[in-house]
Amino acid sequence: MKPVTMAAVPRGFRFAAVNCGLRKPPNLDLGLIVADKPAVAAAVFTQNLVQAAPVVLSREHLRAAASRIRAVIVNSRNANCATGPAGDAAAAATAQEVARVMDCAEAQVLVCSTGVIGLPMRVERIIAAVPHLFQATTRSPAAFEGFARAIMTTDTRPKWAAGRCRLGGRPVRLLGCCKGAGMIHPQMATMLAYVVTDAAISTSMLRRALTTAVRGTFNSITIDGDTSTNDTLMVLASGEAGNPAVGTLGADYNRFVAALEQVCHSLALQIVSDGEGASHVIEIEVRGASSDSAAEQVARTIAGSPLVKTMFAGADPNWGRVLAAAGRAGVKFDPHKTNIYLGGILTCRRGVEQPFDEAGAHNRLLRNFVPVVVDLGGGGGKARVWTCDFTTDYVHINASYRT
Amino acid sequence: MKPVTMAAVPRGFRFAAVNCGLRKPPNLDLGLIVADKPAVAAAVFTQNLVQAAPVVLSREHLRAAASRIRAVIVNSRNANCATGPAGDAAAAATAQEVARVMDCAEAQVLVCSTGVIGLPMRVERIIAAVPHLFQATTRSPAAFEGFARAIMTTDTRPKWAAGRCRLGGRPVRLLGCCKGAGMIHPQMATMLAYVVTDAAISTSMLRRALTTAVRGTFNSITIDGDTSTNDTLMVLASGEAGNPAVGTLGADYNRFVAALEQVCHSLALQIVSDGEGASHVIEIEVRGASSDSAAEQVARTIAGSPLVKTMFAGADPNWGRVLAAAGRAGVKFDPHKTNIYLGGILTCRRGVEQPFDEAGAHNRLLRNFVPVVVDLGGGGGKARVWTCDFTTDYVHINASYRT
Repeated sequence: MKPVTMAAVPRGFRFAAVNCGLRKPPNLDLGLIVADKPAVAAAVFTQNLVQAAPVVLSREHLRAAASRIRAVIVNSRNANCATGPAGDAAAAATAQEVARVMDCAEAQVLVCSTGVIGLPMRVERIIAAVPHLFQATTRSPAAFEGFARAIMTTDTRPKWAAGRCRLGGRPVRLLGCCKGAGMIHPQMATMLAYVVTDAAISTSMLRRALTTAVRGTFNSITIDGDTSTNDTLMVLASGEAGNPAVGTLGADYNRFVAALEQVCHSLALQIVSDGEGASHVIEIEVRGASSDSAAEQVARTIAGSPLVKTMFAGADPNWGRVLAAAGRAGVKFDPHKTNIYLGGILTCRRGVEQPFDEAGAHNRLLRNFVPVVVDLGGGGGKARVWTCDFTTDYVHINASYRT
Repeated sequence: MKPVTMAAVPRGFRFAAVNCGLRKPPNLDLGLIVADKPAVAAAVFTQNLVQAAPVVLSREHLRAAASRIRAVIVNSRNANCATGPAGDAAAAATAQEVARVMDCAEAQVLVCSTGVIGLPMRVERIIAAVPHLFQATTRSPAAFEGFARAIMTTDTRPKWAAGRCRLGGRPVRLLGCCKGAGMIHPQMATMLAYVVTDAAISTSMLRRALTTAVRGTFNSITIDGDTSTNDTLMVLASGEAGNPAVGTLGADYNRFVAALEQVCHSLALQIVSDGEGASHVIEIEVRGASSDSAAEQVARTIAGSPLVKTMFAGADPNWGRVLAAAGRAGVKFDPHKTNIYLGGILTCRRGVEQPFDEAGAHNRLLRNFVPVVVDLGGGGGKARVWTCDFTTDYVHINASYRT
């Protein structure tokens, strides 16, 4: 991952991070994004029925502020989930304090938390830190990287990605960061992602772009099938690039979506490759299905199978596992027309084994990135999802988490 | 597990097992159940779209023979799945040879296979063994236990269970055996189960009893979410107990179902406890759901979560993982009314942590059998499913299976 350069930082935003005492110093545990003027915001949140207090609050604030946002504050270590009325009050008090020091409306502040579920929030530590956190904000690569580090929990490295495009002839910057689900610690398994851009774009177009970009990126990765209680992706657009505001579909919109998609793609794959204990990124591509959604269902079933994921941990070209997982996906296809490629090697042709070089296939599966293609030989439906392999490290860490 | 006694063996059946050369001698790899006269049969097969040749054949035979069956032949080591037309021919040739030596119709012979997917069948070895396999059949505990061993693949021990009831005043015997999904080796992950009984019962009542008994037993266990290409459960009833044939609903039918359910329950839990690397059987009971099917969906989602299963491997009372899994089950409930008991200890009350003794809870979770109760605090819907924990052994064996 390349360092962030000054030229890559979108105009109109400042960043900061501190240790406020939720984690052991000097670990950063509180980050802030500030928009100099109200930025257009769009967000997607977890679909889990159990939702953390800050998720509920941020959704309300986004609506109440008509998607015009001044700040996003994020703490790690504590998810502020299953914390009852005290948790709701903690999220609200955090937004209130940020609004006070920034002199803006509370609804213009979004709040995110990630970490352990069910742990009472030491919100007084967050509130005490807010004034100097705000004072420290700057528009700089170092400040952005600090923010990216402050949101980490079980991630082994920070994750960011920069993108650019030209809208109406003006250069536009996008810069994103995220933290992964770690593939472990369901209690710490939050996916948080933030993209800031200096594009000028309407709320409805930004929402539409986010929905489009998310589908083939963040919504197409699976670590272990669990959706956390805190998952959040936010995009903020300052408009400081000075382009004619994108307000309708067209060439500018398409360029913006492509750039956003590229940033989200990079971030999503960084999450997969940092899945706890993961040694390979596995791309599952399904073709020849009756529809795209049928292809997606098959791809997700394969990607979610522990039997498939452990097979990749051992670089074992067991195509039968892939075929059997496809067969239980709940989608109609003809196994006798199905071809399976592992690491580019045809291993199953029309539903039966295609003789192949075992050692050669094993070597292909040892690579960091392993493409798998399952061609169902039916219609034109296709889909791609990404997952990681499933190693003993995953079990080790999970089995010894608290006790 | 108690040894099978002579008194437990239903009348009207004989058993045998041999090594026919699919596995290394002296490992048994071919088993036969013979009914002295045509027995009433009922069966349930895998719902996987990819179905092994013997599954397709046995389903056809059951229909063609109007559910009157003389023999079931089972081989291990090779699943005869994804083997093309040669696989179909191998299954048919096996039934043909059994029918020849027994002088019965081919359709009266059911065929099952379990083992590796995609491997060509050495059917000539099976056919060569059939005559002496049939000659060796006897009605004895040793012969039955041999059959139970012949169907094993990655199982660490044979699995059987006996039951009895009185129908119309006559003692009736049920005797079942099964092999597990091993929790490993998707290519060898077949659940096969056979129950023989000397009850006299009509085809429709036997089918109904099987459907009822399966729901809360074999269909309520989950090892790793994979449905194999060969899963099969068969019940054969000889009628030799001499009871007035069960042909309608009523007290006799209820007693028979209860006995069948008890045998299936024992077999199903033996499969769970022998899941590869499993050190605990976990019972997930969900109460207070809007319906039984909603409860089942929540219970299955919890039981299928790798995060929950690894937590039990470490005996870690992380109730947050259970709550988060419930929340993504796709079922509506109020997290603020949810109570969670781990090993009998209340750990989450109305959606927030109920202070509990960590060391005490850890000790409870170290036991072989761990009950988990999730009370959603809503309606009267309830369900129970069983699973096992998820240990490093699972990953070790799967990652190094072929290469």
